[in-house]
Amino acid sequence: MPGPRISLANGTSRGLVLDLIRSQGPISRVELAEATGLTQATMSTVVRQLMGDDLVAESGRGESTGGRNPVLLDINPTARFAIGLQLGSESNTYVVVNLVGAIVGRMRTMGVGSADPASMVEVIAREIEGMLSLLGIDKERTLGIGIVAPGPLDLARGVILAPPHLTAWNNVPIRTMLAGVVELPILLDNDATAAAIGDFWGGDLGGAISHATVYMGAGIGTGVLIDGTVFRGASSNTGELGQLMVPTASGDHVTVESVADPRAVIEAALTHPGASERLHLRREDELEDFKSIARAAVHGDELAIELISASAEHLATAVLGMANLFDLDSISLAGPAFAIAGPLYVHAIADRLDREFFAREQHGVRVRLSTHVSDAAAVGGAALVLQAILAPRTMGLASGPTLV
Amino acid sequence: MPGPRISLANGTSRGLVLDLIRSQGPISRVELAEATGLTQATMSTVVRQLMGDDLVAESGRGESTGGRNPVLLDINPTARFAIGLQLGSESNTYVVVNLVGAIVGRMRTMGVGSADPASMVEVIAREIEGMLSLLGIDKERTLGIGIVAPGPLDLARGVILAPPHLTAWNNVPIRTMLAGVVELPILLDNDATAAAIGDFWGGDLGGAISHATVYMGAGIGTGVLIDGTVFRGASSNTGELGQLMVPTASGDHVTVESVADPRAVIEAALTHPGASERLHLRREDELEDFKSIARAAVHGDELAIELISASAEHLATAVLGMANLFDLDSISLAGPAFAIAGPLYVHAIADRLDREFFAREQHGVRVRLSTHVSDAAAVGGAALVLQAILAPRTMGLASGPTLV
Repeated sequence: MPGPRISLANGTSRGLVLDLIRSQGPISRVELAEATGLTQATMSTVVRQLMGDDLVAESGRGESTGGRNPVLLDINPTARFAIGLQLGSESNTYVVVNLVGAIVGRMRTMGVGSADPASMVEVIAREIEGMLSLLGIDKERTLGIGIVAPGPLDLARGVILAPPHLTAWNNVPIRTMLAGVVELPILLDNDATAAAIGDFWGGDLGGAISHATVYMGAGIGTGVLIDGTVFRGASSNTGELGQLMVPTASGDHVTVESVADPRAVIEAALTHPGASERLHLRREDELEDFKSIARAAVHGDELAIELISASAEHLATAVLGMANLFDLDSISLAGPAFAIAGPLYVHAIADRLDREFFAREQHGVRVRLSTHVSDAAAVGGAALVLQAILAPRTMGLASGPTLV
Repeated sequence: MPGPRISLANGTSRGLVLDLIRSQGPISRVELAEATGLTQATMSTVVRQLMGDDLVAESGRGESTGGRNPVLLDINPTARFAIGLQLGSESNTYVVVNLVGAIVGRMRTMGVGSADPASMVEVIAREIEGMLSLLGIDKERTLGIGIVAPGPLDLARGVILAPPHLTAWNNVPIRTMLAGVVELPILLDNDATAAAIGDFWGGDLGGAISHATVYMGAGIGTGVLIDGTVFRGASSNTGELGQLMVPTASGDHVTVESVADPRAVIEAALTHPGASERLHLRREDELEDFKSIARAAVHGDELAIELISASAEHLATAVLGMANLFDLDSISLAGPAFAIAGPLYVHAIADRLDREFFAREQHGVRVRLSTHVSDAAAVGGAALVLQAILAPRTMGLASGPTLV
């Protein structure tokens, strides 16, 4: 591993000070010493190192509290970058963010589909190198890659186990495989968890205590944050909202995913004669067909409205159940499936919670679209890399992913 | 408030040292100083005070580590007591536990039913005084009362809001009302949460990371513990498992409570001609009638087995959904409804999780009956009082109940 990254090892005074400067800056050395409990001598040494690595710069002088006006320090946002990669069946999304989490590059390519993992890893490596080169970002200034995928996952080993929506990817040690071809630290985490972290870094959550980001791509998952800390359960395979059973008119025993996700909506559409032409379904890319239906609904097509509403009502049933279990006060919707129809889903969920949430007399539940609707998981993957280095305290109750 | 209780105020060195002696004792002053980081001088002062209050006593000498054999300290279990009171529609359960959580008294009386809160509070006060007097326990040695009730609750204000199963108790400030007639500190918490705390104090949970105690009395709730810490969500109204929707043969939109709780099982029984006599249903006390059906099921009555199995399968559907959201590795069943039929429910839930739990290749989920099946919530109420004083760190993510 190149040198500059190693010096950012997490859990150190360096990481703590850097995170404080990022979140509180511009800030003086005296304020930093007070906030961290480090001595001023230690603080001076740490700051000198951070400035030597070009991570921090002086940015003018603050108000005097008696003596000389103190020199203020601020982060150098473009000193380092992190890559987020969301693996999807139909498309992969790459984002590059700078040290303060702002997006500096974005790319969408062919998804994992039925591709063989070994050859897909070669493609991913090339695409990452190409993207960094296009952006003019030196690999030495890249902190790492946060890969996000649907669960179940083995975070500690960086293995994709057997996601229902990535059928060709069974027991794939993606972290080790990619590390063999890209010389960068890599972590693996759940796509919905990453989307929640992305919402948190985006500052969208206000003072939420119990927040869930509902993520809908091909399937449906959730990332839960308690006071900004990822809720990881026993093995970081929490939030599998898509597996929740919901009642249907037929009385069948079905998961919410099987009646509410993009494929279910398309299948329901195809039972209507002529729907394929009317809704411009091409049968090539599920997400694109789903977006066509969503677009028609937004434009007032009655069949499309009926289809999207049915999906939204099923999802609302599941989200209500989850809200009653986690006593949520905040929900956001993220993922490509919400790119167009998002507001219809927000409305259906908020309306259901208003009427039926168990603790509704105690507090409301804020429901909204995520800022980065389509790219939320990829942005979150990059944020997880920054967070592993800058603010490891927010990595969760059980252990989070390992950046190796 | 009498003196001896005040001196046990939580969050202090006294509480910390007392909890260490309780959980680690017999233990020497040197070991205590090492475990707490307090100086030996401070430790000597704290220990002297605890011994002066009769909370701690010397219990022989340990092995020498070079010098003299150190004096060992142990807790005096009967120095103080805590009361747990579970409010139920048909019965109230009182338990008294000593300083190590062992039950020293237990009493069951007429429940809250449709009783007017003001007169019920008078009854409760008399019953508490009577019980302490029967047990020969001085009020001065009683730390407080932990009242537990079904949600929704306002923990901070000690108010029972509008529990579906305590219809006459709407917006009842039980803590303040009872404090007016019983001079003891009082806290209010959710019955399922208390049952989970009871399981934790009982040492039943092994190394569980993500645990849920499913509580079935009149309704169905859950207490969730993460690494032994109560998961409280936004307002301590978490774990409302009974509100989860489940599929039914009719395709109706129903909660699991409405098809799986004792009332639902009795109503299903009554649709069968002659079931009332065959299953000895008296139509006076729901829980008693439910137990009659459970007893018949255990003895092989086919109709009873069918009724209990249907309830267990619905509950298993809901528990599976919850397990996939919380990534549980441990579940226990508590509450009077599981007193007889518990093993049938354990089997149905364990079987469903074995087959369908999302992260089953990552880890198993241990399912078992709680040690204090029927009294779990009351025992937990008393444990919450001890915990508020001895080990406030385990009080949860959001703030827990207030002992005032």
